[in-house]
Amino acid sequence: MDTLDILRQLCIIIVAAKIFGLLARKIKAPQVAGEIIAGLLIGPSAFGWVQSSDFLSGLAEVGVIILMFTAGLETNISDLKKTGVKATIIACAGVFIPLVCGTLLYMAFYGWSAVGTEEFYRAIFIGTILTATSVSITVETLREMGKLQGELGQTIMSAAIIDDVIGIIVLTVVIGFKKPDSAVTSVLLRTGAFFLLALVLGVIIYKLFKWYDSRHPHTRRIPILGIALAFALSYVADKYFGVADITGAYVAGVILCQLRDSKYITEKMDINSYIIFGPVFFCSIGLSTNVRTLDMTILWFSLAFVAVGLVSKIIGCGITARILGFKGHNALKVGCGMMTRGEVALIVAQRGLKAGMLEPAYFTSVILLIITSSILTPLLLKALYAKDPPEEKAVQTNVQKENELRV
Amino acid sequence: MDTLDILRQLCIIIVAAKIFGLLARKIKAPQVAGEIIAGLLIGPSAFGWVQSSDFLSGLAEVGVIILMFTAGLETNISDLKKTGVKATIIACAGVFIPLVCGTLLYMAFYGWSAVGTEEFYRAIFIGTILTATSVSITVETLREMGKLQGELGQTIMSAAIIDDVIGIIVLTVVIGFKKPDSAVTSVLLRTGAFFLLALVLGVIIYKLFKWYDSRHPHTRRIPILGIALAFALSYVADKYFGVADITGAYVAGVILCQLRDSKYITEKMDINSYIIFGPVFFCSIGLSTNVRTLDMTILWFSLAFVAVGLVSKIIGCGITARILGFKGHNALKVGCGMMTRGEVALIVAQRGLKAGMLEPAYFTSVILLIITSSILTPLLLKALYAKDPPEEKAVQTNVQKENELRV
Repeated sequence: MDTLDILRQLCIIIVAAKIFGLLARKIKAPQVAGEIIAGLLIGPSAFGWVQSSDFLSGLAEVGVIILMFTAGLETNISDLKKTGVKATIIACAGVFIPLVCGTLLYMAFYGWSAVGTEEFYRAIFIGTILTATSVSITVETLREMGKLQGELGQTIMSAAIIDDVIGIIVLTVVIGFKKPDSAVTSVLLRTGAFFLLALVLGVIIYKLFKWYDSRHPHTRRIPILGIALAFALSYVADKYFGVADITGAYVAGVILCQLRDSKYITEKMDINSYIIFGPVFFCSIGLSTNVRTLDMTILWFSLAFVAVGLVSKIIGCGITARILGFKGHNALKVGCGMMTRGEVALIVAQRGLKAGMLEPAYFTSVILLIITSSILTPLLLKALYAKDPPEEKAVQTNVQKENELRV
Repeated sequence: MDTLDILRQLCIIIVAAKIFGLLARKIKAPQVAGEIIAGLLIGPSAFGWVQSSDFLSGLAEVGVIILMFTAGLETNISDLKKTGVKATIIACAGVFIPLVCGTLLYMAFYGWSAVGTEEFYRAIFIGTILTATSVSITVETLREMGKLQGELGQTIMSAAIIDDVIGIIVLTVVIGFKKPDSAVTSVLLRTGAFFLLALVLGVIIYKLFKWYDSRHPHTRRIPILGIALAFALSYVADKYFGVADITGAYVAGVILCQLRDSKYITEKMDINSYIIFGPVFFCSIGLSTNVRTLDMTILWFSLAFVAVGLVSKIIGCGITARILGFKGHNALKVGCGMMTRGEVALIVAQRGLKAGMLEPAYFTSVILLIITSSILTPLLLKALYAKDPPEEKAVQTNVQKENELRV
């Protein structure tokens, strides 16, 4: 792609993503959905102003790494410990049930396939996409209602985060099967080895960063070395362990999440993300989908995918919460709170695309699930919370104002 | 370039650029020089860990646009007006004398060439590289000495900025001659038309931004729309007027420089620049230079180029300042203050490379000039100022602390 084309396409992407992101926000849908729709409109599906290219894919790739690194950075380990046991059990159920349901859904549409065949892994991949709850959308919903601080809110939030971790592990294992030597034991061994290495290296790296950060706090070096670590771990994960590169970026974030300057790093990453890399990533998802080639099977599948995606989370997390002692309507809140999907589902889908385990057409299903769940979750949660007395109105208003400012 | 390679190369570039940037700073050389040397070391000249690629060139391109946009944003029009007349005359001389001297230098080395021939434009291009004073390095030097606020400091600073503008116009015209229909009148007409359009559109765009900024101050939309404007103007400049794209980016910055949120935009651009785009741009200059292929002619030429570059600015600006009424040693300060070169010289050189008006080998000369001038300027200025009483120590210390924090 020549220089001029780069400038033209970036300009179109940035403006379109922002406009449609804001429009999405107006109708209470997530901005991400707006950005993807912007990609659909400017791409081959509609106007054809922008074509996906190696350069844009490269930028999108960097964007994903930054997003996952940030997600890791935002992990709050001490919060996790508090609500740990219950949240972990809920998260496990919230990964397992959708994984199984998604796999069965694919098989129901395209026929049963024996364990170990390519079709089997495609089926499992559909299930894998359904595993990851979107932390950000869940948190935002709870925060807007001022329900983030209660036991229920904390449990949902912790479960959503643990859910991400388990989801990433599932993705790692599933992607592992696609590599040349995909014997089950070898994949599990490599994955285990990576996490072991990450644990050992993580402690050393964290100590080094902590020492350096105390000597040079709030300097540019900290986020620069942080993103370099994210790139390095992503590379090592994929190259030497056959683990998805985003897993490496996420782990890099988790390693640094307890750093005194972790918020400082997050902030810098965020600014890098929202100006160029983020919009390019989300638009590129729209660009790589051509709605003109969609057939009815995909459309029906998408509807079923959305339904299964929502219901399997509500059932998986809700029933588990009920068993763990939450009252009926609170258990339902947990289920509804866990059903939102966001960036991570897209990132997982995109990894599947790259690994040849998913057709581009299925992005439609994922996008539909994100939009539907993000619109439904706040509505359902508000309805469920409606009976409770309003507690933290003040907090809510402040946070809303802050959100206004940030967008 | 495959995904993994992107991650690996970015990691190496970011870390190497930061380490050598900091080392350069230790020996009082500009960080930029360290980043270029990092590029030389990791590139084909030494270790060969990173190869220049379409993806990296694309990132570097975006990096240049961001740098020039930021340079435009940092223009302080009201300051310029105060010291306007004197500074403009000094700047004109500071562009004209180096332009002529550089052209003659090339001809002295490679033989006389008739006006209008390709060799003639190559010669002029060498002169063009010598025109742009580095605002940032000059300002930093003066600021560190606490001499930024005096009449002398303001004059040097304004002259350095106007110098950039005139330098950009010279570049625009020179690059224009390289385009297919390069009749002198047509080039001048197109260049004039672009600046006229920029002026008219500029007023409208500024008003629109000002209105939007007053409604949504400090929102992400402002820097996002700003960078989109920079991309758009760069594209339009090059595509429809044959004007260098960086001119468009610079103009976009100037249009927005009086916005209430201009500092906010600059800050966000800066963060985008220093984490990924900046290091990639400066390293890619090192990457595209292979010191192994340098011959003695180039080395001798580089030494002469550095000498001519320094002396022509001192003479051009110094004598003009003397004529305008500055006392002898103050006129010399103006000359020395104006002789630093920096990013813009590199950006101009890189544009020449792309337009086929410059061989990659000449980057060595430019890099050498930047390093030498950046080291000599503070030394000379300090020596010249040594006789004056210390005035603004307090300011100096604060500013130095702030700089420490930023790096």
